[in-house]
Amino acid sequence: MSEELRYHVDGEVVPASAATVSVEDRGFAYGDAAFETLRAYGGEIFRWDDHAARLADTCETLGLDHGIADSDLRARVDETLAANDLADAYVKLSVTRGVQPGTLDPQPEVDPTVVVIAKPLPRGGVDSEPVHDGPAALQTTKTRKPASRALPADAKTHNYLNGILARLELRVTGADEALMLDPDGNVAEGATSNLFFADGTALKTPSLDGPILPGVTRRTVIEIAEAEGIPVEEGTYAPDAVREADEVFLTNSTWELRPVETVDGLRVDGDGEGVEGPLTALISRLFDRRVEEQYYDGERL
Amino acid sequence: MSEELRYHVDGEVVPASAATVSVEDRGFAYGDAAFETLRAYGGEIFRWDDHAARLADTCETLGLDHGIADSDLRARVDETLAANDLADAYVKLSVTRGVQPGTLDPQPEVDPTVVVIAKPLPRGGVDSEPVHDGPAALQTTKTRKPASRALPADAKTHNYLNGILARLELRVTGADEALMLDPDGNVAEGATSNLFFADGTALKTPSLDGPILPGVTRRTVIEIAEAEGIPVEEGTYAPDAVREADEVFLTNSTWELRPVETVDGLRVDGDGEGVEGPLTALISRLFDRRVEEQYYDGERL
Repeated sequence: MSEELRYHVDGEVVPASAATVSVEDRGFAYGDAAFETLRAYGGEIFRWDDHAARLADTCETLGLDHGIADSDLRARVDETLAANDLADAYVKLSVTRGVQPGTLDPQPEVDPTVVVIAKPLPRGGVDSEPVHDGPAALQTTKTRKPASRALPADAKTHNYLNGILARLELRVTGADEALMLDPDGNVAEGATSNLFFADGTALKTPSLDGPILPGVTRRTVIEIAEAEGIPVEEGTYAPDAVREADEVFLTNSTWELRPVETVDGLRVDGDGEGVEGPLTALISRLFDRRVEEQYYDGERL
Repeated sequence: MSEELRYHVDGEVVPASAATVSVEDRGFAYGDAAFETLRAYGGEIFRWDDHAARLADTCETLGLDHGIADSDLRARVDETLAANDLADAYVKLSVTRGVQPGTLDPQPEVDPTVVVIAKPLPRGGVDSEPVHDGPAALQTTKTRKPASRALPADAKTHNYLNGILARLELRVTGADEALMLDPDGNVAEGATSNLFFADGTALKTPSLDGPILPGVTRRTVIEIAEAEGIPVEEGTYAPDAVREADEVFLTNSTWELRPVETVDGLRVDGDGEGVEGPLTALISRLFDRRVEEQYYDGERL
């Protein structure tokens, strides 16, 4: 593997230092772009079809008809992995509305800019080392999620300031992730993660009726829990429900499951067994097994 | 003037085609950038100090301590105008948080990216031709402004999707500008403009207590009206107040004042005198005189 990473920009693989977009690209000027964060295990993208479908949904919300087939997008991702000789990686795939005449008004005719960046990650699956800095301190922020009629929460776009403002608040406490509330004050999600908690009756997570990103890992966790006969409830929850939960964890494509150690400074410690509760540990183990089976041919099973 | 425009990127003047930023620049990745849209008249930026102050406010909101003096930013703007031999121009000045290690968390140590783009405009001032496509059709959109606790409205950032989503809705009606409502359903502003209307008692505009950008042209209009003894009211208004107004106009740095011809398909026609009501015409004329005096040495007065 060469020292400098290589990225995919506008159809070509280039060294990271030469991976640029025009200052007039709408992705830069307005954050007018859709993206997906992907994780590659053993050379293959985890649940590509789900990510491709969500990217398509985001583009539809943006009225961004880029005209590029999913297979072409996937090929660019694969080429990026190959160019860096990466089997296990963090991958970010972005599609922007490109450069257009005029200023803010988006034009129907689109010459999109497609960018793929990739960075090495450790192997996933059974006995893998987690890709996060350990159990998280979760902190409720004053910064709220926008209402979906202002910015649709199910669209994953380069307009990410809301999450940045939330993370900025964490500088005071040193917490790891923001617990963001919806406009009504109910819990929504983290700045880059979905939220789960358990209280002895069920595994609970905010419903997609609220301003919640439909996370691919979120869905995987729900599938795993349901397959195990664990009751799963998607609902509307006040912050206190999370503060008083027995177990809390976060999910995203990179972290997979990340246990939460404290919520607003209060220790999550349902049964005194430590930071990773039994349900979190079980689902995490089952998640790793699934990845092992599907992406590493069950090598470590 | 050479055929290709020249822009200012990261301290250097380069041809527009070579004006790029890294795909890892946070301005591209997250829209994590502050900007100002400026208008140059006779080689000088209209109310630079106000724009510089607002840019500083935006950067403070973003926790973006770029360390660049206002005078340095202004020098880059001036260099961009000079490089293009432009006296009358549209100018966009952006400051991003640059490339940083890690993903979403903004780091306090910032190596900002500064971008200045400029495009020719006709001369302003007395007897100038307006820089817009004529009186606007204004259309209330379903897309609402975000609450300021989700995205502060007084911060002018590269997170501009909210306005783009509003403009997308206008494709159906062919309207020119969105009349966007705040989370409570009161009128806020356009996608790229502030709103004024008159009803025979006063010149009215939504108060900065709501999610409103404190426009520099907005402030200029208020100053002009007050100097003329025209009562100005900053308040909270329902959409019907605008639909039933005698006169409606929009303001931004490029348009200056833009008369509104229809609101939600209803003709604005207080006294049957046509699209530009008497108050709009008066303030517009006074605005042009001010520009003429201050930026063209009163040449046409």
